[in-house]
Amino acid sequence: MAKEMLNIPHLALREFSSKAFQSFGVPEDDASLAADVLAYSDEHGIDSHGIARLKTYFDLLKAGKINPKPNMKVIREKHAVATVDGDNGLGLVIGPKCMEMAIDKTRLYGTGSIAVCNTNHYGAAGYYPLLAVAHDFIGLSMTNTTKGVAPFNGKEKMLGTNPFAMAFPTLNEPKVVIDFASSTVAYGKVEIANREGKKMPAGWCLDKNGVSTFEPDEMINGGALLPLGSTKEGSGHKGYCLASAVDILSAVLSGANWGPFAVPFAIDSPVAGKQVGKGIGHFFNSWDIEGFRDLTEFKKNMDEWIVTLRNTAPQVDGEKVLVPGDPEREAYAKRIKNGIPIHPDIMTQLKTISQTSGVPLP
Amino acid sequence: MAKEMLNIPHLALREFSSKAFQSFGVPEDDASLAADVLAYSDEHGIDSHGIARLKTYFDLLKAGKINPKPNMKVIREKHAVATVDGDNGLGLVIGPKCMEMAIDKTRLYGTGSIAVCNTNHYGAAGYYPLLAVAHDFIGLSMTNTTKGVAPFNGKEKMLGTNPFAMAFPTLNEPKVVIDFASSTVAYGKVEIANREGKKMPAGWCLDKNGVSTFEPDEMINGGALLPLGSTKEGSGHKGYCLASAVDILSAVLSGANWGPFAVPFAIDSPVAGKQVGKGIGHFFNSWDIEGFRDLTEFKKNMDEWIVTLRNTAPQVDGEKVLVPGDPEREAYAKRIKNGIPIHPDIMTQLKTISQTSGVPLP
Repeated sequence: MAKEMLNIPHLALREFSSKAFQSFGVPEDDASLAADVLAYSDEHGIDSHGIARLKTYFDLLKAGKINPKPNMKVIREKHAVATVDGDNGLGLVIGPKCMEMAIDKTRLYGTGSIAVCNTNHYGAAGYYPLLAVAHDFIGLSMTNTTKGVAPFNGKEKMLGTNPFAMAFPTLNEPKVVIDFASSTVAYGKVEIANREGKKMPAGWCLDKNGVSTFEPDEMINGGALLPLGSTKEGSGHKGYCLASAVDILSAVLSGANWGPFAVPFAIDSPVAGKQVGKGIGHFFNSWDIEGFRDLTEFKKNMDEWIVTLRNTAPQVDGEKVLVPGDPEREAYAKRIKNGIPIHPDIMTQLKTISQTSGVPLP
Repeated sequence: MAKEMLNIPHLALREFSSKAFQSFGVPEDDASLAADVLAYSDEHGIDSHGIARLKTYFDLLKAGKINPKPNMKVIREKHAVATVDGDNGLGLVIGPKCMEMAIDKTRLYGTGSIAVCNTNHYGAAGYYPLLAVAHDFIGLSMTNTTKGVAPFNGKEKMLGTNPFAMAFPTLNEPKVVIDFASSTVAYGKVEIANREGKKMPAGWCLDKNGVSTFEPDEMINGGALLPLGSTKEGSGHKGYCLASAVDILSAVLSGANWGPFAVPFAIDSPVAGKQVGKGIGHFFNSWDIEGFRDLTEFKKNMDEWIVTLRNTAPQVDGEKVLVPGDPEREAYAKRIKNGIPIHPDIMTQLKTISQTSGVPLP
């Protein structure tokens, strides 16, 4: 079953993504920005949100379902907050620009919030708060996504895997980067289990009848993911609560399609019968630490926080205690040196993109 | 084993709390505010955070460990954000006043954030965002708490049950109120299992050796709670990430004691050997919906969101799908009518308070 991975140098992969976006008329700066967001995932080991998604962006651009030259507009504003209409552009372009707007507002007011409607899939949520950290601010980012998760006690897909991401600056220790989906696992993990013919652990999924299942194909064929916490005993209502907060802030507040109406990120998925807003939605927030506390003191405390948590005694047979962001940093160190491992199925997709666009393979 | 509950009218219970606080020199308005926060829990079925905690506040006031007449001060400010030093006052008084400051800033800037240090246990996190909702704003509240939870892969208590709470206004449907601890369960649930001689489900706790346990007393004697998600398969790292975000925003940003150094909310618990800040910390944020979107349109969409989620097909043998805030509202309807059920052990505590303070029992 195992197919051999191909390692591609990270810069070559960035170049390919950027050129592929440009082949659809995405302006060079925007294409390079979109490629940067994808590269963040590939370089940090978040394989589900990087180059593996390029084919879908490509298909949607090709089908005219994403606007390559959006005219992004602030449609409502009040001092430190605003809503932006993304004009159906790439989330990979609209997202970073809107986080930068939140940062600009934070410079003026100490904090800033941007809600975004009429946008599309924006890659890894963790990319965005790091833009705020580059200014020594705290950053927060969330987005609603295509329905895939059943609410607590429900059996139908009604909410997306709606991620929550934050990042915090530090002094000498690495940045704390939080980025997690509000479902127990992302759909990608179900796909992997299915591809490998493995059963899934309890608590990941329901089948189409709303019964807990270990079989990946029973989730794929009409079942649903479970919210973080999974069951009544595991406090699955908490993951549902978090997914709800993300859905409301990203989509109801911005005027995007919320809940089960979120526009799917796939060329062949049917769009929900009803539209309740425009595109999907994101929410960005940042805070100026200097408005709360001396920045250096904060950073020193963050370093101490990291060292303290890392020094937690591990479980008996357990792995060492990490701080949020560590797994991605470990992947980064390897991948910048050795290249990005590309699955042969993804390589086939890249070949198709290359043939269609005329952009040489990386 | 079962002891009979005593029902006490909710107004009598409020009166008792308020007078008990006043008996220590807490000014009447502050005492009434603190009683209101406790009453919110009792009236909404959150038994762990209401009158059941009065004895602890009382003991801490009696021992001079909480300042009954705090001189709350803004110690740093930048437009829409500020840090407040709570002068070691009751969290039940400092908390509401700081959320109101966030609301005032939101009126001016569209959003407002207040970090608080040198404060104490503030009751149910869900009380605070509702103060913002009363102004048609969105509210968020979090606090760090005494250590009780092991980080993912760790066996020691390093973080609190650090709750996350948000509330959203609606038109005709009831408000959406989110309030959950970032651990799989609160310590109160372990105590209940212990009292009733029951085993706990998998995924709640570790024993002192860092091994998963079903026995409540094995957690109580040196074990730890697990973060939401519990295990590797259940994505326990996600609950750890959320608890970390709450700890950093509440305590590192404000200059309070973070992580394992959080001041315990108990008269007989040893204080951590080292202090890394002042008291514990809270974080409050609110957003003016009108800065993002027409308020009525938002509220109409919220109503549709609620109806849509409620209409999710339930699991085969499952209960109906609720929206966040429903269980508390059901409790409220019953308790306002029938009174607040008080456990005999709590009644004994109230008797002690009555004898010490001279305030007549409710």
